[in-house]
Amino acid sequence: MDYSDFSMTVVGLGLIGGSLAMAIKDRLKPKNLWGIDVNTNALDYAESAGLINRGFLSAKEPLQKSDFVFICIYPRETAEFIRQNMDNFKSGAVITDTTGIKVPIISEIGSILRDDVDYISGHPMAGRESKGLEFARENIFEGADYLITPTEKNKPENIALIEDIVKQLGFGHVVRLTPQQHDNMIAFVSHLPHVIAAALVLNPILEKETLYFGGSFRDITRVGRINPDLWSQLLLDNGDYVIKHLKIFEDSIQDFIQVIDSQDETRLKALLAKACERKEGLDLSVDARCKSGK
Amino acid sequence: MDYSDFSMTVVGLGLIGGSLAMAIKDRLKPKNLWGIDVNTNALDYAESAGLINRGFLSAKEPLQKSDFVFICIYPRETAEFIRQNMDNFKSGAVITDTTGIKVPIISEIGSILRDDVDYISGHPMAGRESKGLEFARENIFEGADYLITPTEKNKPENIALIEDIVKQLGFGHVVRLTPQQHDNMIAFVSHLPHVIAAALVLNPILEKETLYFGGSFRDITRVGRINPDLWSQLLLDNGDYVIKHLKIFEDSIQDFIQVIDSQDETRLKALLAKACERKEGLDLSVDARCKSGK
Repeated sequence: MDYSDFSMTVVGLGLIGGSLAMAIKDRLKPKNLWGIDVNTNALDYAESAGLINRGFLSAKEPLQKSDFVFICIYPRETAEFIRQNMDNFKSGAVITDTTGIKVPIISEIGSILRDDVDYISGHPMAGRESKGLEFARENIFEGADYLITPTEKNKPENIALIEDIVKQLGFGHVVRLTPQQHDNMIAFVSHLPHVIAAALVLNPILEKETLYFGGSFRDITRVGRINPDLWSQLLLDNGDYVIKHLKIFEDSIQDFIQVIDSQDETRLKALLAKACERKEGLDLSVDARCKSGK
Repeated sequence: MDYSDFSMTVVGLGLIGGSLAMAIKDRLKPKNLWGIDVNTNALDYAESAGLINRGFLSAKEPLQKSDFVFICIYPRETAEFIRQNMDNFKSGAVITDTTGIKVPIISEIGSILRDDVDYISGHPMAGRESKGLEFARENIFEGADYLITPTEKNKPENIALIEDIVKQLGFGHVVRLTPQQHDNMIAFVSHLPHVIAAALVLNPILEKETLYFGGSFRDITRVGRINPDLWSQLLLDNGDYVIKHLKIFEDSIQDFIQVIDSQDETRLKALLAKACERKEGLDLSVDARCKSGK
């Protein structure tokens, strides 16, 4: 699709918003790309670097003329932003967000949204352990999955629109999930790894000893460099699914403790062989998905 | 030091043994570099690719003339190899191994070792999730830590010898630890991440759903592609330390469950902030160590 008549706004010029702005400017080439942020430095930088046509501290002016709005701020702030700007959106506008949890925000927004705007929630599966505009890069999205969680309220043509946009921005696959499927899966593939990394680096051994380690510890703790403000929202607002998956994981750790404690080599080998096979299967399925472009 | 008069043997031409052979040939340039393996294909390949001067299925001939022996096979097989070849080692030879656990093997070898050979156990902190000679590369050691666990039985000049050799092979730091310090630390930085990765990929959700994920899940499960034969030995033979660390980790996961369940945002933020600070401190200390070369 052609976006040369579109006016678009990115709300929140951090790592994700900044990277999206770069990709939109380069690849979609809309008539207007505006940015909204609370930080004037970020706006000045984004303007002068040509990431956006113009930056705004106040949302009203750009929102009134925007056909498409990417909201790239924290979950609770996203809901608050939409609530406070409900009268400012252009009639017919499509609004999306990039937050990592869907059930609470969709339920909150759904109950207050104007009939003449469409809100389709989304989640780019791309991030970095560094935050802020200075780390924004257009290519962090290349080939990544983009999850969307449309509901029956969304217009089919608007779902098609967001799918087209994110594909043009470089994402590999756009996947439709229900908000519940999304939050359950994300609790496992994202929230659980972050809690594990945090739990590992909180081990008192780090205070007492110099640790020497190779790739396995480096990789498993990579996301331990966590943003407490964002992640406390994600973990608490997705609490039910996160606890469910932490408990399943705990049971699995308990199985290993029991098998090692009883020196049951046959069972341990079987567990590890199954794990290895599963991981290989997972890698193959990801490879296959990437190659097929599905 | 100069090794042009040395004869050396690598036992086991897998990922580690093959990579060591490459580095030894290139950097130490000993008079002779021999390889021992049970696999004739590996020996033929290593000979024809110039990784070794000559390969042997039978250990006696090369061991009788070797000043230095790197044993790069599984832990239990290492002890068995030394036991079976006790009469074959050259008088004055220095023997080392590369296994990931130290207490059991040092205790076993210590009680049977000839007085005129020296066994100093070592552990290169470099590995890959792929095994076998085809994945061997000289550069996997570049800058990595090399742990050694000398005991009071070892001669100081032989400890200095192994330290010089591994530094010349490209390792960044040689660290002396007691066998107990080593096994305790490795249970945390290596064995624990492997059990966690295995536990995660064993989750039944992988059978039921197509998972879409980003870097955190990919990184945390990287070592889930585990070698069941090797890792069942490592986890069982280091069982006491592994269980100790799995239980500490479980308690930490339990703390997170409790904090999330009670929606205690203040405490969760504090935990995450502490984790972030710890991880940053860890990264900085590793960076500093790398830069100082210490």
